[in-house]
Amino acid sequence: MPALPLTNFSRLAIHTMTNKPWTLAQCIQAYTHANVPAITVWRNVIDPIGAPAAGKMLADSGLTVVSLARGGFFPALEASKRQEALDDNRRAIDQAAAIGAPLLVLVCGAVPGLPLPTARSQIRDAIGQLLPYAQSHNVKLAIEPLHPMYAADRSAINTLAQARAICEYHRSPFLGIALDVYHTWWDPDLEKEIQLAAQQKTLLAFHICDWRPNTRDLLNDRGLMGEGCIPLKHIRHCVESTGFTGYHEVEIFSTERWASDQTQYLEQIKQAYLTYS
Amino acid sequence: MPALPLTNFSRLAIHTMTNKPWTLAQCIQAYTHANVPAITVWRNVIDPIGAPAAGKMLADSGLTVVSLARGGFFPALEASKRQEALDDNRRAIDQAAAIGAPLLVLVCGAVPGLPLPTARSQIRDAIGQLLPYAQSHNVKLAIEPLHPMYAADRSAINTLAQARAICEYHRSPFLGIALDVYHTWWDPDLEKEIQLAAQQKTLLAFHICDWRPNTRDLLNDRGLMGEGCIPLKHIRHCVESTGFTGYHEVEIFSTERWASDQTQYLEQIKQAYLTYS
Repeated sequence: MPALPLTNFSRLAIHTMTNKPWTLAQCIQAYTHANVPAITVWRNVIDPIGAPAAGKMLADSGLTVVSLARGGFFPALEASKRQEALDDNRRAIDQAAAIGAPLLVLVCGAVPGLPLPTARSQIRDAIGQLLPYAQSHNVKLAIEPLHPMYAADRSAINTLAQARAICEYHRSPFLGIALDVYHTWWDPDLEKEIQLAAQQKTLLAFHICDWRPNTRDLLNDRGLMGEGCIPLKHIRHCVESTGFTGYHEVEIFSTERWASDQTQYLEQIKQAYLTYS
Repeated sequence: MPALPLTNFSRLAIHTMTNKPWTLAQCIQAYTHANVPAITVWRNVIDPIGAPAAGKMLADSGLTVVSLARGGFFPALEASKRQEALDDNRRAIDQAAAIGAPLLVLVCGAVPGLPLPTARSQIRDAIGQLLPYAQSHNVKLAIEPLHPMYAADRSAINTLAQARAICEYHRSPFLGIALDVYHTWWDPDLEKEIQLAAQQKTLLAFHICDWRPNTRDLLNDRGLMGEGCIPLKHIRHCVESTGFTGYHEVEIFSTERWASDQTQYLEQIKQAYLTYS
């Protein structure tokens, strides 16, 4: 069964990093003007103005703040570095609370030379140390499994099953999973893991974009929906048939798109969203 | 327990594609001169001279021919294209037999827009159609799981478990797996699947190189052993502790290395092999 067609923008959210050339103020103005109802805020657009000012701008805008991106990067060879990561993640939780974000997305981290199983243990333990702080600030944590091409240096959590294992270890209502189609469309157990996450109430976020055949860059060559080969409607159907009613968050890192006119690009995003998502 | 240190080149093989600027004759001359005992031949170096001439050169050289690379690319949207792929794979089996290669490595294929499960069914069926031909030519087929970053257009077989599923479906002594550390170092079940493959007598080949953090290109930026983060000695230990006595095949696609002096590079490969593999 295909997903029901999208006919409006009521579930559309955009990550500020998608429009990287814009400041937070520019994102807010453009999204509200374009009737995009929700936003995920990246920390780089908060840094120049501070979280209290960002929080006030967002509250005044009427935009729904879906999440703050991003915390994580927990593993390290030295204990002191792991402590620094925990401190930074507490600051991220502070920021999330300050801007009214109910969720902090975690890119969990990996370190060249550190065995992946060790990195995963460090990630699991770090999340355990953070959870009380997250709960006390009413901010949930979402583990985002990253594509295996980032296993060297960005995340040792590369499958939905690995993210689920950490969720099952902690069994906290403040811990779940952010499902990004870019990272997981190839996942050997995609459909099964989406169902399991929904059953366990850990399916907290849904990020969309596309995978370009002949991808030119590992980091910044994501495609706009419809430009690639990800079965977006199929995955959305899998997600929504579980009862998920959250936002469809457009998160696209693209050197090519960042170099283009961002206002025109926002219209292209909206069109692609309705047509291909 | 770490792997026993490598002290000589008796198990070293090199893929002709590693020294892409060289012809087959140049590869043969350089490897024999450098006391590299074995070679995996890519079809592009056979094409200019034909398989009979290539076979004679290889036989005269005394080099052990480990395998022919590569067959595969089975899935297609149209049945006629799938038939063409089968025909081409029969020619590859002919070539393997003609050059004395006991093994044909399969990059199984994927097509943007074709669902991965459909592609996997087509791969499974195509291999079933090829197996009698392979057996009659005494050439084994080795499924090489490819990294998920190639799931769009090069292979829908991205984990060792997916390769095993096809082997278990056919249960033929002429079908197995080529384990390439570049594609599988992150595999969620790497150690378990190596053991299973050995138990099932399907562990047919072992390819080495390294994964560079900050990889600059999805296709041609592989690292020389020691330049990256793959736990090469650990994986070799896993492989050899199962009783595997095959070659360690150096397969490196690298625009940077291809632009360098190939004779010097061959010495660097030998040194890196002893030190890091």
